[in-house]
Amino acid sequence: MRKAFHDELETVYSDLSAICGQVKVSVERATQALLTGDAALAEQVISADAEIDHQRELVEEHAFALLSLQAPVAGDLRMVVAALRMVSELERMGDLSVHVAKIARLRVPEVAVPVDVRPTVARMAQIAEYMVDKVVRIIADRDSAGPEELHAQEEEMDRLRRSLFTAMLGDDWPHGVEAAVDLALLGRYYERIADHALSVANRIVFVVTGEAAVAH
Amino acid sequence: MRKAFHDELETVYSDLSAICGQVKVSVERATQALLTGDAALAEQVISADAEIDHQRELVEEHAFALLSLQAPVAGDLRMVVAALRMVSELERMGDLSVHVAKIARLRVPEVAVPVDVRPTVARMAQIAEYMVDKVVRIIADRDSAGPEELHAQEEEMDRLRRSLFTAMLGDDWPHGVEAAVDLALLGRYYERIADHALSVANRIVFVVTGEAAVAH
Repeated sequence: MRKAFHDELETVYSDLSAICGQVKVSVERATQALLTGDAALAEQVISADAEIDHQRELVEEHAFALLSLQAPVAGDLRMVVAALRMVSELERMGDLSVHVAKIARLRVPEVAVPVDVRPTVARMAQIAEYMVDKVVRIIADRDSAGPEELHAQEEEMDRLRRSLFTAMLGDDWPHGVEAAVDLALLGRYYERIADHALSVANRIVFVVTGEAAVAH
Repeated sequence: MRKAFHDELETVYSDLSAICGQVKVSVERATQALLTGDAALAEQVISADAEIDHQRELVEEHAFALLSLQAPVAGDLRMVVAALRMVSELERMGDLSVHVAKIARLRVPEVAVPVDVRPTVARMAQIAEYMVDKVVRIIADRDSAGPEELHAQEEEMDRLRRSLFTAMLGDDWPHGVEAAVDLALLGRYYERIADHALSVANRIVFVVTGEAAVAH
């Protein structure tokens, strides 16, 4: 019985890790669509999101069945409940990459991001992708050192977002309101993807140690 | 034993409803701070958020204890798991009102929202507050008709947000980039508060019926 339970739990966690891998692809493609004005790729991100939603439902049903049929306690209970919460966050990260793709699509055949801030946005996207990629492994390995690894990235994300605001709000911003509005939202979306990645890594700490990760 | 369990569960749900009431106050005050440029009120929203976070922790601990000690099944299990998820969403709604308050604070002694779009933003805020207020009662009464009540509000929120974008992106927008960037983010924050309110109402449907609410 316990053996079967732990096998089931392992399946739930490898499914979570796989969903995180799908999210990573989604963030990458949304970014590429954004930076190149590729409408077909943006569409692909938008339509692929249904698959992430479907995978989330399967994980939820599985986790519910484990709670209901096996009534786990202590560390096992924490693992199942944490899985339910992580899968919601992973789905949100997928939704946020869809928001990025929709801004890309809205501006085709133009590129939403002006040339001179493209390096900043590309770097924000790169950090988000790096964090999501780390989380694929953090979930699979139940690595409680995850949040430490992601802390520097989170700080850089914050700096980049502030520098984007400084550029947009300067008197010499040449790209007008539309580009600024797009960038304000894009900055927010990438930052939220990064926040969720860190939050999932923190939940793994809770799963492993039974204690909440120390807030940075 | 079952009687005690149901009393405990009732306490969890009345605590959730109370947290939702705190969120409502937070959204109201943040909006007032935003529309009047009241720095002291904005500070109050920002510092009061720690109390919402603390209440969330208490509900989480309580729900975990119920899962662990009572191993509920079926409808009881759904109620406890739903409580864990709803409390996360309520906390996020509190965070979003803090974001509104921070934009208010950033622009003091000015008012972030230009006079001519103040009615639109005030209406968005009013819808968000109305939805949060409804959810206070929907949680307390476990009212599975909640999502239907909130559907019209969600649509109006969507229309208002689009009209805000139309105004900002028009050739005759006189308020410059900073106001537009603030408004883009404010629109997003109020919309997310409304989304979370609807999501909590949908979770109540799941609690009551065992089936997910039909997506609108």
